[in-house]
Amino acid sequence: MARLTHFDQKGRAKMVDVTQKEATSRLAVVCGKISMAPSTFRMIQDKSIVKGDVLGVARIAGIMAAKHTADLIPMCHSLNLTSVEVNFKPLPDKATIEIEARVKTEGKTGVEIDAFIAVATAAITIYDMCKAVDRAMSISDIHLVEKSGGKSGRYVKSKQ
Amino acid sequence: MARLTHFDQKGRAKMVDVTQKEATSRLAVVCGKISMAPSTFRMIQDKSIVKGDVLGVARIAGIMAAKHTADLIPMCHSLNLTSVEVNFKPLPDKATIEIEARVKTEGKTGVEIDAFIAVATAAITIYDMCKAVDRAMSISDIHLVEKSGGKSGRYVKSKQ
Amino acid sequence: MARLTHFDQKGRAKMVDVTQKEATSRLAVVCGKISMAPSTFRMIQDKSIVKGDVLGVARIAGIMAAKHTADLIPMCHSLNLTSVEVNFKPLPDKATIEIEARVKTEGKTGVEIDAFIAVATAAITIYDMCKAVDRAMSISDIHLVEKSGGKSGRYVKSKQ
Amino acid sequence: MARLTHFDQKGRAKMVDVTQKEATSRLAVVCGKISMAPSTFRMIQDKSIVKGDVLGVARIAGIMAAKHTADLIPMCHSLNLTSVEVNFKPLPDKATIEIEARVKTEGKTGVEIDAFIAVATAAITIYDMCKAVDRAMSISDIHLVEKSGGKSGRYVKSKQ
Amino acid sequence: MARLTHFDQKGRAKMVDVTQKEATSRLAVVCGKISMAPSTFRMIQDKSIVKGDVLGVARIAGIMAAKHTADLIPMCHSLNLTSVEVNFKPLPDKATIEIEARVKTEGKTGVEIDAFIAVATAAITIYDMCKAVDRAMSISDIHLVEKSGGKSGRYVKSKQ
Amino acid sequence: MARLTHFDQKGRAKMVDVTQKEATSRLAVVCGKISMAPSTFRMIQDKSIVKGDVLGVARIAGIMAAKHTADLIPMCHSLNLTSVEVNFKPLPDKATIEIEARVKTEGKTGVEIDAFIAVATAAITIYDMCKAVDRAMSISDIHLVEKSGGKSGRYVKSKQ
Repeated sequence: MARLTHFDQKGRAKMVDVTQKEATSRLAVVCGKISMAPSTFRMIQDKSIVKGDVLGVARIAGIMAAKHTADLIPMCHSLNLTSVEVNFKPLPDKATIEIEARVKTEGKTGVEIDAFIAVATAAITIYDMCKAVDRAMSISDIHLVEKSGGKSGRYVKSKQ
Repeated sequence: MARLTHFDQKGRAKMVDVTQKEATSRLAVVCGKISMAPSTFRMIQDKSIVKGDVLGVARIAGIMAAKHTADLIPMCHSLNLTSVEVNFKPLPDKATIEIEARVKTEGKTGVEIDAFIAVATAAITIYDMCKAVDRAMSISDIHLVEKSGGKSGRYVKSKQ
Repeated sequence: MARLTHFDQKGRAKMVDVTQKEATSRLAVVCGKISMAPSTFRMIQDKSIVKGDVLGVARIAGIMAAKHTADLIPMCHSLNLTSVEVNFKPLPDKATIEIEARVKTEGKTGVEIDAFIAVATAAITIYDMCKAVDRAMSISDIHLVEKSGGKSGRYVKSKQ
Repeated sequence: MARLTHFDQKGRAKMVDVTQKEATSRLAVVCGKISMAPSTFRMIQDKSIVKGDVLGVARIAGIMAAKHTADLIPMCHSLNLTSVEVNFKPLPDKATIEIEARVKTEGKTGVEIDAFIAVATAAITIYDMCKAVDRAMSISDIHLVEKSGGKSGRYVKSKQ
Repeated sequence: MARLTHFDQKGRAKMVDVTQKEATSRLAVVCGKISMAPSTFRMIQDKSIVKGDVLGVARIAGIMAAKHTADLIPMCHSLNLTSVEVNFKPLPDKATIEIEARVKTEGKTGVEIDAFIAVATAAITIYDMCKAVDRAMSISDIHLVEKSGGKSGRYVKSKQ
Repeated sequence: MARLTHFDQKGRAKMVDVTQKEATSRLAVVCGKISMAPSTFRMIQDKSIVKGDVLGVARIAGIMAAKHTADLIPMCHSLNLTSVEVNFKPLPDKATIEIEARVKTEGKTGVEIDAFIAVATAAITIYDMCKAVDRAMSISDIHLVEKSGGKSGRYVKSKQ
């Protein structure tokens, strides 16, 4: 029967033992989005000298946060990430910014949690930078898009 | 005209100067949710000795993460939080867990960002604890529900 | 003559150079205990809905703290831990909880310090959770039980 | 009936709400000790140029760790400490070092947990610095000696 | 006779006791500079789409690092900063970037160390971003420019 | 044409992808200095019982800070350092302390940034410990002295 691997046979939380797992090249891609008022969206897109570069700050926040994953998620292993990218795709029709994080390592466990942290932190940073003008922004649809490396092989989210 | 307060007149990012603001009692409530396969939902709900207490771990992760907010969000002020609560509401019909964080401080700035961090981290912890059985879980609808304290007064999200 | 390896020949503190050491599978087991009033002990054991799961919180605190070892202990190398377990054994006759941490890595240095940090942090978390009802709790007998891996080979504490 | 304040009425862990508590001057004193082989004790006492200043390093580690308390102990409030002292008292007859931490703040909650963290970290640092020559060192008897400030008033541990 | 306040009468390091000091509005301004090859300087100044915004990244790094000061400097008190600004002034004739950090708090101790950390971290970030093209960059002349608040009053560095 | 490797082709900041790079033994040596009033210099040199060991504290601060490099520098990879040394060379004629950090790792990227952080933090710690008697101290000439390991080979700063 399927079991949650972060608990032992008595239901006690533990960090999964990966000592014997092989170190392989691993990749995870996570996406999410933040929706806002059209006027807020225009402010972010307009990187004029008065407005500042909201997405530039959010990108750095997301990259730095990925390096803090093991501090934040109790049972996560600490890993030395070998690559972190955070990309944004503005969707003007929906006044929405799509956020994608791509994280790599060469290690014994996957990096999908690190990519989730990068996306969530980038999104919350956008909220923080714009909250003075729009408190109703909403962060949605953070999900794993792709994962490769390790024993379980490649995963690609099926199109809905 | 509305301006993003985290940038100066030349568009350079800065931590907003709150030196002259009064310290008041502040509250923020943020909600979000994580959706999953029905079988995953049942595993979380069934806190039998074999499964372990997923939500108990996620609650602690959310509370601890709130204390790291200023480390994660570049322009956020560090604050001494006076209360953090993270609550879960299972929605069996939707195989979804609702997550609510309530954060308080007595300080010069609000704590909504801290509450966002608590909700996002609790959600990602649920993902981490269950990813061995369900990679397609999705985190959604993280938004500010209520905010009080400070010059801008009380905010309650309007019902949609 | 025996020398303290964390100082150079002039007595200056340094992080020991392990560049040339081989990465091997390493394990460390550390035990300790916290003693309390019998009524406090009963409260912890009684995980009724009103009391909450003190040991569950302490276990998570211990596991997460192990990942912070290099931040806390000045000359400690940072390591990517591959497994952390924190276990509790209640000794009702003595109103005492025994705490055991088992930590593994595959690396160039041992993980006994990480296991000490896990035990001490779990113990202090128990103190924190119960201090409102018992300020006189005492933490004792934190010691290395077993260690393996690396050039110095296996160590098992002799029975007293 | 006495209750553990870090859980709500449903047994869910929470950070105690101290928003309404008054900020007062608070002090906590915690003691502990580390016992070792007599030869290790002499090495520590002999701060000759070859041996290095073990206790000097341990003092700094203890002081710095006190500032990390809220990162380590899940339900602990973050506080701005106003004073931290770590003192050592060698007991040659017992080949033991006594460790005392004195911590102060002006805040809404006490600082005894911060003092526990300082003592435990100083002790583990001594272990780390000397482990190459003595793996059997043992850390014991970490307990609250004195506490003042706040509604609950002064506490002094009774002599046994 | 003048004494170093971070040591007690026996020469033991301690965090200065500021419990009885009054909380006042405090400001510190620290400047420094980083010199480089003229071609590196031009690359930084040319924020074309291919080059990226080196100073934008360095500004964020400096602001975030100021919030970590008490983690880095052993005897530094943790403070809740109320404002951090990091500014750059390019000096084309010297192929040098001047860096200025302005930090404020309302607290019991000054914030000059936080401003030093901001300047040094911003400078090292510039080095990191450009090291692939110029390893010989040099960071110089980091000094306190101005300080106000607290018992010791205002300090302004005299012109040389 | 030379490009800054921490930006992609659209000028967006990213952590350089080192997944495919080989792990090799790497060394970096960085030097810097802090200048002060002659009376301050004498106080530091005189490690009498009343003055305390300023450089001992600064050495520990520098070593510990090197382990925080990836937390501070946005695009820096986290690495497990295998050796950190911080040395001081007093220059009485100039009332100046020279600071040298030697950092090693076996990894996919170099450690020069870690060595910069160690030197800067040691220097700022000296400033912090002495600021009560000398606010005009100045930190200068932090630069890479030597670097080896990795594809780009050995670098030794040319004498000026």
